[in-house]
Amino acid sequence: MQIFIHQTHHQIADFAAIFKDLKAVMKSSQPGVHLFPELFLTGYPLQDLCLQKSFFNTYLKFLNELRQWCAQHEFHDQIFLVGGLDYALTQEGNPLSIKNVIFEFSSQRKGQPIYTKRLLPNYDIFDEKKYFTKGDEPKVLNYQRKHFGLLICEDMWASTFYDLDPIEELDLYCRENGIQLDAVLNLSASPYNMGKKQMRIQRGLEISRRLKAPFFYANRVGGEDEIIFDGGSFVLNDSEILVEAKVFEADQICFDISQLSRQTYASQAVSKPSLIWEDLFEPRLDLDQSPPVLKTWDNNIQLSILEALKFGFQEYATRNGFHSFSLALSGGIDSALALTIMKLSLKPGQSIEAIYMPSKYSSDLSYELSWQLCQNLGIPLKTLPIKSLHTSTQEIFQQNFTESFQGLTDENVQSRLRGLFIYTRSNQIGSMVVNTSNKSELAVGYSTQYGDSVGAISLLGDLYKTEVYRLARYINQKFDAPIPESIITRPPSAELRPDQKDTDSLVPYERLDAILESILTYRHDK
Amino acid sequence: MQIFIHQTHHQIADFAAIFKDLKAVMKSSQPGVHLFPELFLTGYPLQDLCLQKSFFNTYLKFLNELRQWCAQHEFHDQIFLVGGLDYALTQEGNPLSIKNVIFEFSSQRKGQPIYTKRLLPNYDIFDEKKYFTKGDEPKVLNYQRKHFGLLICEDMWASTFYDLDPIEELDLYCRENGIQLDAVLNLSASPYNMGKKQMRIQRGLEISRRLKAPFFYANRVGGEDEIIFDGGSFVLNDSEILVEAKVFEADQICFDISQLSRQTYASQAVSKPSLIWEDLFEPRLDLDQSPPVLKTWDNNIQLSILEALKFGFQEYATRNGFHSFSLALSGGIDSALALTIMKLSLKPGQSIEAIYMPSKYSSDLSYELSWQLCQNLGIPLKTLPIKSLHTSTQEIFQQNFTESFQGLTDENVQSRLRGLFIYTRSNQIGSMVVNTSNKSELAVGYSTQYGDSVGAISLLGDLYKTEVYRLARYINQKFDAPIPESIITRPPSAELRPDQKDTDSLVPYERLDAILESILTYRHDK
Repeated sequence: MQIFIHQTHHQIADFAAIFKDLKAVMKSSQPGVHLFPELFLTGYPLQDLCLQKSFFNTYLKFLNELRQWCAQHEFHDQIFLVGGLDYALTQEGNPLSIKNVIFEFSSQRKGQPIYTKRLLPNYDIFDEKKYFTKGDEPKVLNYQRKHFGLLICEDMWASTFYDLDPIEELDLYCRENGIQLDAVLNLSASPYNMGKKQMRIQRGLEISRRLKAPFFYANRVGGEDEIIFDGGSFVLNDSEILVEAKVFEADQICFDISQLSRQTYASQAVSKPSLIWEDLFEPRLDLDQSPPVLKTWDNNIQLSILEALKFGFQEYATRNGFHSFSLALSGGIDSALALTIMKLSLKPGQSIEAIYMPSKYSSDLSYELSWQLCQNLGIPLKTLPIKSLHTSTQEIFQQNFTESFQGLTDENVQSRLRGLFIYTRSNQIGSMVVNTSNKSELAVGYSTQYGDSVGAISLLGDLYKTEVYRLARYINQKFDAPIPESIITRPPSAELRPDQKDTDSLVPYERLDAILESILTYRHDK
Repeated sequence: MQIFIHQTHHQIADFAAIFKDLKAVMKSSQPGVHLFPELFLTGYPLQDLCLQKSFFNTYLKFLNELRQWCAQHEFHDQIFLVGGLDYALTQEGNPLSIKNVIFEFSSQRKGQPIYTKRLLPNYDIFDEKKYFTKGDEPKVLNYQRKHFGLLICEDMWASTFYDLDPIEELDLYCRENGIQLDAVLNLSASPYNMGKKQMRIQRGLEISRRLKAPFFYANRVGGEDEIIFDGGSFVLNDSEILVEAKVFEADQICFDISQLSRQTYASQAVSKPSLIWEDLFEPRLDLDQSPPVLKTWDNNIQLSILEALKFGFQEYATRNGFHSFSLALSGGIDSALALTIMKLSLKPGQSIEAIYMPSKYSSDLSYELSWQLCQNLGIPLKTLPIKSLHTSTQEIFQQNFTESFQGLTDENVQSRLRGLFIYTRSNQIGSMVVNTSNKSELAVGYSTQYGDSVGAISLLGDLYKTEVYRLARYINQKFDAPIPESIITRPPSAELRPDQKDTDSLVPYERLDAILESILTYRHDK
């Protein structure tokens, strides 16, 4: 029996496309079990949208139409397990309960919910308890004399913070009923974190060994503002990865479980999972060093970070209808890395314009390096000096006010004039302005409000400064060194006063980033 | 027996002040029952802060010190009922559970939790299920042969969306145990909404009649970014308001329940409360009109809106350490109203500077009205023309780029130059820039990013444009007409091109606001 994972890529609430694509698969697919991700039918995360009447009334209309269509449709040895929302409404048409469920579409059932998600994540970016009612029991689906244990995303994780372990309960249910599972099927909508895919696989293997069955993981692909879904669906068994789907693009994978003979699984203590929910939120610190520093990533994870940034950028641009992009290039590492990533992600019909906006404090080297970078990347560089407006602004203030214009006032004016210019250019050509701030300066406020902090998306906003350097080095190593070496090695400076250095105001980034990570990461502050 | 409500005003996590003030009350107070608001000991709302180790370890240190202090302290016929958090920690020192409780401090108990909040609000701005573990049972406190029913905030509300009605359970508990309550005590941290105080009183009276006892409501005062707590604590009985505390300032009220003889309460159906949770979230629409329009408020609520805006502004300014304020005055209604409210809220040692920044499209009338308003309010008006920088920017772009500078590009440059100027002035004098956008233009995006949308706080951001007009008229009627009539009657315009009117781009505000309210208010979208 074949089990198919449909790793899908849709926008939230794009019901016309979602239901059309599902029907197309239903019409054309091969026999077997077909898995679609968690909340495939609606998209995820929905937040208050799932309470809006126009949202759920439209969704329910599409769902009912699909059910009617299925009543006429012949399923040829096919069963479709599809994530969606199950609404119960009051007489007034308000939601009484909303459940995150798996719908079955088959010759037996034409779109009935058969399993409700049991662990509702409600930490960090998640707020499922705000909207969803949890399920009460494990579920084993019997289909063509096979037994499938069902899970939705978080159900695979255990934690000291949950009073419930769905894997343990599923195991117990199987033992009590004398069931040997043929597969465990997990429909997910799991966002990307650095290194998370490896943890999903590690935990999946553990579940496979515990339940003595292959583990199927169906994840979605997509970007919803700051959250991106990486796909990377997989099939595991015992200690082996059998099939893996692509990351950051729609894909379909398939595995025939008849290939697997009954086998002895590697033994393992069943009382406590080795990997628990909290492991996903450990600070990324190397605590063996004193003082601690940020963990370094291997090249596989560096590559996944690059792919994540490219994907997130393109998703955001596409969803907002932008085809051209403007970026303020300074000659520093942040804008250089952002521009390089944009270029690496560029699709046909898209264009990038880099703008260099020197003030009287800008060094010749900054221009030369910016020019060299744009040459390497094949991106047009425009120069738009801010000197004259800087002087005019100073004069107007000196004519009208007695207070000093020196210091931070003078520095911030330069940064804000650049903000004005890049957005004026955006107005002229309809481009999306890309912000180049990194996580370290965002966290400590080392930037000018309405100045270098402007932009539609903060491409590097999730990378600490030391991670910016590491990613730049990784890209230079992988792609024939597009970023001039001097951009990486020169001391970071905002160039808003003579001989300014970041370290005039901040502790060295290596130390700062370790401190920030320990403060900012969930529940840790040492 | 006297019952005191201590309506307090503290900052979140200001443990030194909170515990010092509590001890001072414990040392000096009269005999009786002393009520402090929900989460008095920590502040509210806390969001992820309550998971941060440095937060809860500091809190627990203060709490333990207080308990030790209480062990030495003599309570003279006094009992203190104080809202706080009850942490259970894992061996590793992480929170295993956090409960929102009432602590008792008395000669019997030195800071033990005696009641846990049962209904955890988790809608709109609330996310208590993300952090707190709910209580399982009603609580009647016996103290000096009196019986007190305990509630925390949300426990007083009922809803078709809750599977639990704490008032009903408290009633049942009293009946089963033959208890006649002497008072119902509700410790709250209830944010201000337009018209909400009236609803609290209405529901409190209902509870008083149902439980046949006076109802004490202890609320906090404070501002946490966009959330403000209005205080307005009260004591009710049957159909009567016995005592009311001030709004938007710390206060103490007291009522002696011995004054009340056992009485017959007005009868009332006990099966269903007349006012339920959802009533707090009804769209503020007058549906009797076709098409519907925004509800109008009576003068009591207009006054409370004014007080709320003054309080919220001052809380934000004080918390952030600002004593001087800058505002861009345009001659339109929004900036005029914002300036007037700021002036009405002004405290000794604070100052306001209004800046008029004309472009070539600004009318003489705009200047005259701005000048007249500042005269009326006694606020200095500075004029800082943007014309020359507007021209310079245009020239630089024409020298460097071929694309047109007309239309939105030209309009947005003017608005962004004003943003640059007001923030440069803020840099010079250390002032807080106050934004003047209203909710209607924020909702539809009728403003310039990094232009007129800049500012540290959006003073009118919760008022639709029609509410801006109504509040301006209310203020003019109450305070001898500080706002020139023509500012209220002239058609709204951004003055960024010749003869521009808001209605060139938007439907009339009366209609727009009704549409926005029905879309933006929770769960409605008709």
